[in-house]
Amino acid sequence: MSHAHATAPTEFVEAKGIRFAFRRFGTKTGVPLVFMQHFRGGLDHWDPAITDGLAGNRPVILFDNAGVAGSSGETPETIDAMGDYAVAFVHALGLTQVDLLGFSIGGYVAQAFTLQEPELVRRLMLLGTGPRGGEPSKDANFPKYATSTDPTTGESGLDAFLYLFFSPSPKSQAAGKAFWERRHQRKIDVDKPSSVQTMKAQLVATQAWRQIKGERFAELRYITQPTLVVNGNKDVMVPTINSYTLAQHLPNAQLIIYPDAGHGSQYQYPNLFLAHARLFLDS
Amino acid sequence: MSHAHATAPTEFVEAKGIRFAFRRFGTKTGVPLVFMQHFRGGLDHWDPAITDGLAGNRPVILFDNAGVAGSSGETPETIDAMGDYAVAFVHALGLTQVDLLGFSIGGYVAQAFTLQEPELVRRLMLLGTGPRGGEPSKDANFPKYATSTDPTTGESGLDAFLYLFFSPSPKSQAAGKAFWERRHQRKIDVDKPSSVQTMKAQLVATQAWRQIKGERFAELRYITQPTLVVNGNKDVMVPTINSYTLAQHLPNAQLIIYPDAGHGSQYQYPNLFLAHARLFLDS
Repeated sequence: MSHAHATAPTEFVEAKGIRFAFRRFGTKTGVPLVFMQHFRGGLDHWDPAITDGLAGNRPVILFDNAGVAGSSGETPETIDAMGDYAVAFVHALGLTQVDLLGFSIGGYVAQAFTLQEPELVRRLMLLGTGPRGGEPSKDANFPKYATSTDPTTGESGLDAFLYLFFSPSPKSQAAGKAFWERRHQRKIDVDKPSSVQTMKAQLVATQAWRQIKGERFAELRYITQPTLVVNGNKDVMVPTINSYTLAQHLPNAQLIIYPDAGHGSQYQYPNLFLAHARLFLDS
Repeated sequence: MSHAHATAPTEFVEAKGIRFAFRRFGTKTGVPLVFMQHFRGGLDHWDPAITDGLAGNRPVILFDNAGVAGSSGETPETIDAMGDYAVAFVHALGLTQVDLLGFSIGGYVAQAFTLQEPELVRRLMLLGTGPRGGEPSKDANFPKYATSTDPTTGESGLDAFLYLFFSPSPKSQAAGKAFWERRHQRKIDVDKPSSVQTMKAQLVATQAWRQIKGERFAELRYITQPTLVVNGNKDVMVPTINSYTLAQHLPNAQLIIYPDAGHGSQYQYPNLFLAHARLFLDS
């Protein structure tokens, strides 16, 4: 029986002192697409419309990085260390080539991963993310919402999520609620919420990532893989101009910006994003 | 017999004192896609890979605006007047709804057209273009190349074209030469080159278009049609940031920026552009 987002069992693999939680589904052959998750997110925070959609013609791997949700250990306080752990995870699975989809802080990690092990990476998708030393959020509500925690679930609530990931328009908010429904379809073997330690360490890491280190954006020239950069035109967390900057400085990056959309634009337009992603991955 | 880019006869229609040259091919039914050409360009300066590709499931209409190439009259000195003439042309064909593809100055005219007659326009594609009051080119070679004229053909030459429409990389330059070959496939019933009067009037009009008029970019909020904005990441004529600005201010615009490409990015990636354009037009 072949698995899908809602049914793939959580598996574990050991590397670098961490017991990594992951799920694998999709086809048996082909270059696997490894998903790298946003701030505080775990295995259950992806959109099944997108994971299952892309699993139609490739293996898809979701995982929790060190210390995050169902994985053991502590979350480190730098993006580069997160990249190290992600590389160790991919090696532990015995993979020699992967595609990466990094969303938000996961996009930072995907860049660090690619700079560390360029030969492991075939293609890169960077969603709602930006370069090291990019433009910080100027949104007044962002810090409050980003750290808000529902006492029952230990996760951020729907209101914070809709504010941070979608535009204020009724259409975008409705798309956000539809995504929220899709995201909660899995009822068995669900992942743990991330800990307060993970939240704090990821905050430290993202603060440090926003500092300019050496010549601004210079490291991007070493990411030569074909890259697809995606965002909404109104991202209040990782301002949209950062996606533009990525596409200006990466040697081989296509940029797609969706209208009337925020940080989670791929969840607002899942079918269009799937079509664009397939064109990119399969070309 | 159905026509294509290379074989469609040049026809003429009268409106507003102008005898407009145009060609129509593709399907008989569906919303026609009207192409609006770049600075100095005429009917024969489009890419048959794109015109024929899009004509596969819609009527395609190429035309010379007032005074341009095979059309009679004088080219006016404002974008708004060019928009007026284009509206008159579309009315003269008896069309009640069209899609517009405007490239470069043609993208300015497409915006003016849409602001004047919003109910005529279903969808809009804006390629290598920008808003009124956008950022001017800072390229030192642009003015010289833009006005260079081959004494034999009366048109700009290959060198100027490759510099202005493609990036300096060998890959982009090779794609430019491949497009140049495609563009010269039509041997019968070819269009006249544009006159010096057209070049001068279009220069005056583009200079005026670059001036900020009232609140900068405010008029874009009235272009509510679904819009696809496309450019290369290194446009030296209409700097790429103008495409980003369009997608930030138009209420419903998707932005696609292609890598290692200039002003003519759709000619560098004709198949990918066709796929993206079809997704947009047919959604």
